[in-house]
Amino acid sequence: MPKYTKKDFPVHNIRRFLEPGPIVLVSSAFKNDTNIMTMGWHMVTEFSPSLVTCLISGANHSFEMIRNSRQCVINIPAVDLAETVVKIGNCSGREVDKFSAFALTPKPGTHVRAPLIEQCYANFECRLADSGWVKKYNLFVFEVVKAHVAASPKLPKTIHYRGDGEFMISGAETRKYRKLFRPGML
Amino acid sequence: MPKYTKKDFPVHNIRRFLEPGPIVLVSSAFKNDTNIMTMGWHMVTEFSPSLVTCLISGANHSFEMIRNSRQCVINIPAVDLAETVVKIGNCSGREVDKFSAFALTPKPGTHVRAPLIEQCYANFECRLADSGWVKKYNLFVFEVVKAHVAASPKLPKTIHYRGDGEFMISGAETRKYRKLFRPGML
Repeated sequence: MPKYTKKDFPVHNIRRFLEPGPIVLVSSAFKNDTNIMTMGWHMVTEFSPSLVTCLISGANHSFEMIRNSRQCVINIPAVDLAETVVKIGNCSGREVDKFSAFALTPKPGTHVRAPLIEQCYANFECRLADSGWVKKYNLFVFEVVKAHVAASPKLPKTIHYRGDGEFMISGAETRKYRKLFRPGML
Repeated sequence: MPKYTKKDFPVHNIRRFLEPGPIVLVSSAFKNDTNIMTMGWHMVTEFSPSLVTCLISGANHSFEMIRNSRQCVINIPAVDLAETVVKIGNCSGREVDKFSAFALTPKPGTHVRAPLIEQCYANFECRLADSGWVKKYNLFVFEVVKAHVAASPKLPKTIHYRGDGEFMISGAETRKYRKLFRPGML
């Protein structure tokens, strides 16, 4: 497993990592409990403040922990964690201490109590910014208040879920179309 | 450019194409006008009804067309359309008839007036299901009421935006972890 050296990353630009649509790991803390869940339904919503909308099913142990603590960390795993990501999504924090079971290292954040997952190449500390649609859709709007991203690799391979147990592994091929963009549209 | 033969696809399972996070083309119709926009901020929100949440900036010509018509089509382009996708995102329907300018073929849908883009490998006909957060966040919740997907290729290569004019081209590598899933978690 790679050891990452992470740097602060500008929160208004985390679309760079989330907009391509990777599966993410969401870590949380409430009272004496921590947990991790696998999440595929998320969307960048605003650059500044840095908003991310997420859907967290009420069936998840993390749901109440995040609703009550009003915090989480969105962690982006690279391809080396693919099998772990699947296993995390297929057991419950009610029965399993996932940090320990999957040999993941909880690291303290600077702005939230929820732990960062050291083995993920990016960690976004989040505060719940709008809970207005939690009841209606299980939809959480988070503000990313601090972002930590590995200095290298610049473009890690990520894991994208297709349903049915199938994942697309992405990041090997990049195309640059900068010259076709109008100023302000990048 | 490939010629696709499309089949009906179950609307509750469109996560298969949207959850991996491709950039999409959104087509719309209002009064005598049609338009196309490029969109990267979308999220599957529910299986059944088949809900998709999207962010459409108020600066887009499509914004008012979709808000007023309460309909659109989400079209998924494969990698052959990458340059077209960028160009569509860098001009405005106020000045350009995009179907004609980019040699795209509008095809009638069955449930909405907004045209499908024939050259895209999947077309999801959508009705606006919840406009409650349009004013607050430019956030639209659509219900996919009909889905058309190309019979082949089964797994086309898709285009994922990273910002800064850079795209990740995905779909060449797939991993199957079906056996690690609990029943009901696929």
